[in-house]
Amino acid sequence: MTSPASPALPAFFTQYQTEVGAELRRLMDRAGGGPVREAMRYTLLAPSKQVRAVLTLLAADLAGNRGRALTAAAAVEVVHAASLILDDLPSMDDAPLRRGQPSNHRRFGEATAILAAFGLLNEAFAAIARTYDPPLASRLTTLLADAVGSDGLIAGQVEDLLSTDRDIGFETLERIHRRKTGALFSAAATAGALTAGAGPDTIAALAAYAKNLGLAFQIVDDLLDVTGSPEETGKAVRADAKKTTFVSFSGVDGARELAGELCQTADAALAPFGRHADRLRELSAFVVARRA
Amino acid sequence: MTSPASPALPAFFTQYQTEVGAELRRLMDRAGGGPVREAMRYTLLAPSKQVRAVLTLLAADLAGNRGRALTAAAAVEVVHAASLILDDLPSMDDAPLRRGQPSNHRRFGEATAILAAFGLLNEAFAAIARTYDPPLASRLTTLLADAVGSDGLIAGQVEDLLSTDRDIGFETLERIHRRKTGALFSAAATAGALTAGAGPDTIAALAAYAKNLGLAFQIVDDLLDVTGSPEETGKAVRADAKKTTFVSFSGVDGARELAGELCQTADAALAPFGRHADRLRELSAFVVARRA
Repeated sequence: MTSPASPALPAFFTQYQTEVGAELRRLMDRAGGGPVREAMRYTLLAPSKQVRAVLTLLAADLAGNRGRALTAAAAVEVVHAASLILDDLPSMDDAPLRRGQPSNHRRFGEATAILAAFGLLNEAFAAIARTYDPPLASRLTTLLADAVGSDGLIAGQVEDLLSTDRDIGFETLERIHRRKTGALFSAAATAGALTAGAGPDTIAALAAYAKNLGLAFQIVDDLLDVTGSPEETGKAVRADAKKTTFVSFSGVDGARELAGELCQTADAALAPFGRHADRLRELSAFVVARRA
Repeated sequence: MTSPASPALPAFFTQYQTEVGAELRRLMDRAGGGPVREAMRYTLLAPSKQVRAVLTLLAADLAGNRGRALTAAAAVEVVHAASLILDDLPSMDDAPLRRGQPSNHRRFGEATAILAAFGLLNEAFAAIARTYDPPLASRLTTLLADAVGSDGLIAGQVEDLLSTDRDIGFETLERIHRRKTGALFSAAATAGALTAGAGPDTIAALAAYAKNLGLAFQIVDDLLDVTGSPEETGKAVRADAKKTTFVSFSGVDGARELAGELCQTADAALAPFGRHADRLRELSAFVVARRA
């Protein structure tokens, strides 16, 4: 946390990203033709860290079997890409840039962008139903739907929009980001564990790790909005000026400290796994140390 | 087809609508709180004919067991409501009225409307995963995702938008509406048959019936846009002036004739079932005879 430069990606990260990228392209090749598919691919396949998918794969590793985790990891990224397209819309954050390129609606128009987001959510559920044996598919579907639904992404996004230009308390801010980011992080880790047949204790520990990691990740995003450039972050910066963020609440140093504490809390949940969880610890170290 | 007034609903219709309405309210009661849920309920629970859900229940009846069809019927209506919210958005048809009330975005704002549509699609998949045994849930998920995806609602909607203010051929028009309406009608019937454990021949016959019924339904909608009033249709009329419709293509009389022919084709698929399919025949007679 003291280095001014962003740390290098952990070595295993690159390999996992390659696997996830190949799976995402495979899913999109199945998704039929036309302008909606092009818009779906545009955001989904643009360069990104794929932290959530890597988290799914690492959780499956920890639970002892990564062999079935790839489609679940990809489905989580598909849902995440859908949420990015929605967040950027003119009626929401009206963001011009995402993942180093014009945002989806700037490139394809608003209607196609909305349909692309809808199509991505649909494809996430389709991929799960196609890939997994039915009992596992049902659990993954419920898990993902809960992360999207009324205590997840959608609830967080609407509360975020309602909070713009308003004073909100720390509890509200925390709840927004627990829903907007923490819920899908938690589902990502749980999904990986489920595909590996993990028991409830392992799942609970991984979900606790991921929830705190997600919140730390969001705080670092808020920091990058203040301290970064579009070239470094791939999106417009100083975009949160009208919003209460962890930085506007606690200042740059306070937010950085909070992110560090959340990563420690995350890592504490990994204690029962000893050295087997080292890669997850590398992931949290990377997440909290990202800097612009 | 010669009566100038809309025919009465078939008697069984009212009972089925009541059952579907109760199931939809039950699903929404589970969907959590806040402004998104209110927006979801607003369009989903507004008075409507629920033709698609009734079709699901009738298909299950025909296949011999309606006992498990209700959630599938509701899920189809949930997906349909999501698609209506999207179709009405300013970036799409910019429709002021739907189901006899201001359209979702006019009532709740665009951002909440988009999130409500997203939440409804999510809830449809969640309800299926929660309700059905996993093998059936997986089949229903795939069925519904195919009806939404790149050869269904989304593909039809984007092609519809691209066709506005353009000359399109009859084949294109037919393909748009096969995707926008036919695909979900076909999935509705198939879903009902699947919940009843129907075999492939029954499923194929019901899907063929429903596909043609859906197209006939759309043509009658086009007719009502020309001949009806907002009070009668619950939405703005003469809204399709910039679009090629079945009426602009074939004239009022030609479109009415085409709808009649499609219903005959639909009914022909029911021949193997004899009198057991009488209620489905009542449904198609009702669909084609709707008038403003």
